[in-house]
Amino acid sequence: MNTNDYLTFARELADAAGRAAMPYFRTGTPVDNKDPAAFDPVTAADKAAEQAMRALIRARWPEHGIVGEEEGVHQGSSPYHWVLDPIDGTRAFICGLPLWGTLIALNDGTRPIVGAMYQPFTGEFYAGTPDGAWLNGAPLRTRACPGLHAARLMTITPDIFRVPAQRAAYDALAAEAQLVRFGADCYAYCMLAAGHVDVVIEAGMQPFDIQALIPIIEGAGGVVTSWDGGDAQHGGAVVACGDPVLHARLVERLQHAA
Amino acid sequence: MNTNDYLTFARELADAAGRAAMPYFRTGTPVDNKDPAAFDPVTAADKAAEQAMRALIRARWPEHGIVGEEEGVHQGSSPYHWVLDPIDGTRAFICGLPLWGTLIALNDGTRPIVGAMYQPFTGEFYAGTPDGAWLNGAPLRTRACPGLHAARLMTITPDIFRVPAQRAAYDALAAEAQLVRFGADCYAYCMLAAGHVDVVIEAGMQPFDIQALIPIIEGAGGVVTSWDGGDAQHGGAVVACGDPVLHARLVERLQHAA
Repeated sequence: MNTNDYLTFARELADAAGRAAMPYFRTGTPVDNKDPAAFDPVTAADKAAEQAMRALIRARWPEHGIVGEEEGVHQGSSPYHWVLDPIDGTRAFICGLPLWGTLIALNDGTRPIVGAMYQPFTGEFYAGTPDGAWLNGAPLRTRACPGLHAARLMTITPDIFRVPAQRAAYDALAAEAQLVRFGADCYAYCMLAAGHVDVVIEAGMQPFDIQALIPIIEGAGGVVTSWDGGDAQHGGAVVACGDPVLHARLVERLQHAA
Repeated sequence: MNTNDYLTFARELADAAGRAAMPYFRTGTPVDNKDPAAFDPVTAADKAAEQAMRALIRARWPEHGIVGEEEGVHQGSSPYHWVLDPIDGTRAFICGLPLWGTLIALNDGTRPIVGAMYQPFTGEFYAGTPDGAWLNGAPLRTRACPGLHAARLMTITPDIFRVPAQRAAYDALAAEAQLVRFGADCYAYCMLAAGHVDVVIEAGMQPFDIQALIPIIEGAGGVVTSWDGGDAQHGGAVVACGDPVLHARLVERLQHAA
């Protein structure tokens, strides 16, 4: 198999997830809370979309493992495993906003080699492999950025930086950026891959929040790592940048707070 | 003329603005800064969209006035005037995010009687008149909300609350809300009209930021006022709520900071 075959299959997964989720979008679907101490919403759409993808994977690649946000780990006999977030941005979903997405990664046991983000309301399918990155088949390319003073910076909300040193580090970057924008979940990383946004910085990420986005960012010419410059696939505090030189400078500033 | 005729014309304005703006969307169009002390972006898309609408209004209703974000006030011989924001959410526009919109209001000299928000990338046309509110012709209705603990609350960013009393009042509401979401400009008010979001609270609004949204919110059954319960059409600090009773309770809490 090559990555193009897996990418074709990822598109089938995305379509199935979209068909499962869209009947619940903007219909006032009930919201359950996964965390009574806070508010961690989940809907029937999340569950239906993940189940649709798991069924297709088991039928096509029974030896592959599956890691999904809603149904946990299915151990496969192969090191290859699919990392799924059926609806990244459930809060956006329940608010009616079209910035959520279905995240699909194929990890070869060492790293994600295929990644996809699908937004079915807008019909946008972002994908990445070692060969490149594309929006609905059109190549994506990050843009150069000479420094933070010229940077468009995104994060879902400053409230995710719960460790004081992380919040201080974020605040310092945000104060220097030309523009700061909140509220976009996975969509922010796709805008970075497309060359419209320069920096995305977040913390408290799960592996299924980021793995699908890594091949998209890297395939478009960007860099995404943990704050100390390490592998982003494990989640935690991550920083993505469309310009590799600016990324290296940001890691210099962030690593003490990683 | 009745409001339906004006609404039909507003749709023509929206289409013209969309045709003018979309060629610049996601194309790396240059960004000028209207405020060197801060960052107040404007692009050729803003200017082209407003010019397209102004030309249509002058041809069809030469006696009407025009108030637009980019080109200021054209005094008409009639009290009727159009209030235009060609791209509400220029920051979203330059970041590639589809949450900006073209805002169009017709004010009869006392209040906005027709309002529209058009998002051409997603093809969503939100409209309101004294007869109701619609998304692409389908009726919109706000949802009931028993209290802040159950409310989905939106604001573009907490940074807009620059007056300390306003920031404190906002922080208190946000701490009680079930969910807080940033980053949606005019789109947030449309999600409120559609019954997906319960509260939108902002400050520092211009008349052209809010007038088009008032008929949409009110036509869907919601309420939007200044923080002291007064007329929202003049901008400033505004609070919109899908549930009229919850709105009254919010004004009780906000009026001291208005």
